[in-house]
Amino acid sequence: MSKPTLAIVGATGAVGTVMREVISNRIDAWGEIRLIASPRSAGKKLTIRGEEVTVQAISPEVFDGVDIAHFDLPDDVSAHWVPIAAAKGVVVVDKSNAFRMDPDVPLVVPEANPEAARNRPKGIIANANCTTLALIPTLAALHKQFGLESMTVASYQAASGAGQEGFTALYDQLTTVVGTPGLGSKPGDVRAALGEAANDTFGAPLALNVVPKVGGWKEDGWTSEELKVRNESRKILGLPNLAVSSTCVRVPVIQGHSQAVRATFTSDVDVVSAHKVLSDAPGVVLVDDPAAGRYPMPIDAAGTDDTYVGRVRASLDFPRSLDFFVVADNLLKGAALNSAQIAELLLPEFA
Amino acid sequence: MSKPTLAIVGATGAVGTVMREVISNRIDAWGEIRLIASPRSAGKKLTIRGEEVTVQAISPEVFDGVDIAHFDLPDDVSAHWVPIAAAKGVVVVDKSNAFRMDPDVPLVVPEANPEAARNRPKGIIANANCTTLALIPTLAALHKQFGLESMTVASYQAASGAGQEGFTALYDQLTTVVGTPGLGSKPGDVRAALGEAANDTFGAPLALNVVPKVGGWKEDGWTSEELKVRNESRKILGLPNLAVSSTCVRVPVIQGHSQAVRATFTSDVDVVSAHKVLSDAPGVVLVDDPAAGRYPMPIDAAGTDDTYVGRVRASLDFPRSLDFFVVADNLLKGAALNSAQIAELLLPEFA
Repeated sequence: MSKPTLAIVGATGAVGTVMREVISNRIDAWGEIRLIASPRSAGKKLTIRGEEVTVQAISPEVFDGVDIAHFDLPDDVSAHWVPIAAAKGVVVVDKSNAFRMDPDVPLVVPEANPEAARNRPKGIIANANCTTLALIPTLAALHKQFGLESMTVASYQAASGAGQEGFTALYDQLTTVVGTPGLGSKPGDVRAALGEAANDTFGAPLALNVVPKVGGWKEDGWTSEELKVRNESRKILGLPNLAVSSTCVRVPVIQGHSQAVRATFTSDVDVVSAHKVLSDAPGVVLVDDPAAGRYPMPIDAAGTDDTYVGRVRASLDFPRSLDFFVVADNLLKGAALNSAQIAELLLPEFA
Repeated sequence: MSKPTLAIVGATGAVGTVMREVISNRIDAWGEIRLIASPRSAGKKLTIRGEEVTVQAISPEVFDGVDIAHFDLPDDVSAHWVPIAAAKGVVVVDKSNAFRMDPDVPLVVPEANPEAARNRPKGIIANANCTTLALIPTLAALHKQFGLESMTVASYQAASGAGQEGFTALYDQLTTVVGTPGLGSKPGDVRAALGEAANDTFGAPLALNVVPKVGGWKEDGWTSEELKVRNESRKILGLPNLAVSSTCVRVPVIQGHSQAVRATFTSDVDVVSAHKVLSDAPGVVLVDDPAAGRYPMPIDAAGTDDTYVGRVRASLDFPRSLDFFVVADNLLKGAALNSAQIAELLLPEFA
C-alpha cells in the first residue's frame, strides 16, 4: 500500500515551522505532504524533508486525498475548518482549544492514553495545551503506579508560548533593558523604559519581570491557561474528579515551560519508588542529582523532545505526596512533537 | 531622655546600603547612628540621614553605648558577633539565619507578631528570610480571619536575593545573551554562550532561564530556602504544625520576590471576604483587578515598602482554600525595611 498523505495546516506559523522540522527529523512514514496556510501565504515555498513544497491556500478541495492533517490555527479558525476537513474523511490532529473538551473528541498524549486515539467519532483528535503536555508524561507514570488524587501547580512559561511575536517581544525588551543599567529596582522603571507597547504581547513587560497572566480571563479570576491545565489533565488521565489548582505565570525565558508541582496520591509514595517509576517512564528524563547541580531547567530542555523531571521530594507535611519540578520544550512536546506522535499512532490504520 | 543610639553592622553590603536609605527616609527616632563593618571597610565614609559617617571596624568596644543594632552579616559571622553585642546590653536585630529558629530568639514580622519582640531572653530578635517575609503580611491577615491550616508555595525569586553579586551577574549575562540573537531555543546554547563562570552565582545561568535552586542543599532534596519558608512561617504565625510545601526558584528579575500560593484554612473562605481582609491588612496592598490588567508584579513592587497580593481565587477543587499571588521587594520588606520596623517597635522601651 502507498504511504498515507499528510497535510500541515498553518504551516507558516511558529509552531508550523517546528512541525516541519519535527516531521523532517522523524521516521519518514508519509507519502505526499501538503503545506496549507491562509490565502495570503499561498505560493510561498517552504522546506520539508529537504524538499521545497509550495504552500496551498486552505479550501475544502485542498483536503481531497489527505489521510491525516495537523492543524495549527487560532481557535476560531480551527473551529471552522477542522469539521470541513473531517467531513472529507481526513483524520484531523488539532492543536487548538476548539475541540479539546468535546466529549466526542479524544485528547491524546501518546505516553498517557494512546488507545484513546482509536475512538474518534468526529474524525478529530485534539492535541493538549503546551503547559498540560509538559506535565502529563510525568503525571501519567506516577498515576499508574500510585494513583493521582490531587495536584497544585505553578508554571514558569516561556515567551515562545506567545508564538513568534513572543520571541521577538522578549528579545527586544531585553535589548532595551540591558542598554539602560540599573533598571528593575525602582517601581515602574522598566515600564517607563519600555513604554506602553511592551504591554501588547504579554499584558505587561516581560523583561526583568514575571507576569501572572497566561491566556485570557475566565470566570472567578481564573485564566484560560489555568483552567486548561485542570480540565485537560482530568480528561487525558481519565480522572474527571482530579483536584487541581494551577497558577500560570510567564517568565523571561525563550523556550521551555517549567512547573513546580505538589501531587498527592491515593497510595503511599516515596522518592526511591518515584525515581524508579520516572526512570522507566516513556518520554520522561529524570534529572535529579541536586548536589551535582543536576535539576531540570529550560536552557537544557529547549530544543529537545523529552520532558524532564527532578527535585523530587517527599512532602514533609502532606501524606502520600511528592513535590517535583518538570520542564519541557513548549514548541516540541508542548505542541509539534506531541501532534507528530499522535499521527504516528495512526499509521497501522493506513498500513 | 535622649534618643537611642543605633548601629548598622554590615553597613557596606547590598542590604546595608538599602538599610541606610530606609533609615534615612523613615521617622528620625535615632540619636547617634554608628556604621560598622569588617576591618577592611573601616575608615570608609558612607552617607546616612544626609550626613557622612565614618565606618568603624567591628570590635566588642564599638558596641559600647549602642542601644539597638541591626546586623546584616553572613550566618557564621553573625553567630560569632551577635552574642558579643548582646552581652553588652545591645538589643540586636539580626538578619542572618543564625538565630531564627532558636526558641529563645523571637522571629518578628511587625504586621504578624509585634508582641513577640518584647520577650527576648537573649537580647536578640531575628529578622526572617526574604521569601518568608513577602508572604507573612498576607498570610497573617488571612490566618487571623480564617485560620491557616496548610499552604503550597512556589517562588519566583529575584537575582538581588544573591546580593550585589546577583545584580551584576544577571545584568552581565543578559548583556551577553542579547548580543547573540537566537539563544535560548537549543539545548545548552545559553550555557555555551555564557561559559562555566555563569554557574558561579546561581548554580546555573540565570539569563533566559529559571533555576530551581535557592540556597544550599539540605536533607532529602530540600533546599535551605524551602525549609526556611516552612519553618519560619510556622514560628512567626505560632502554628508549629502548619503544613507547608515550598519550591524555591530563581528567575531573571532584578528585585522583587513573587510567590504563587495555595492556602487552605480551617474556616470557610471566599474571595469577597478575603478581599475585605486583605484591603484592611497592614503592610498589604491588594492589586486584584485582572480584567483591568491589575495584578502584582516585581517591576511594580521593586523599590517599594509594601507587600502586594492579587489573583485571589477560590480554589475550584479544594475546600476552604484560596489561590493567590504575592510580591514584595526582597531588599525592603524582605530585609532592611522589616528590620527597621522591628527597631521602631522597641522605641517605647527607650522613651
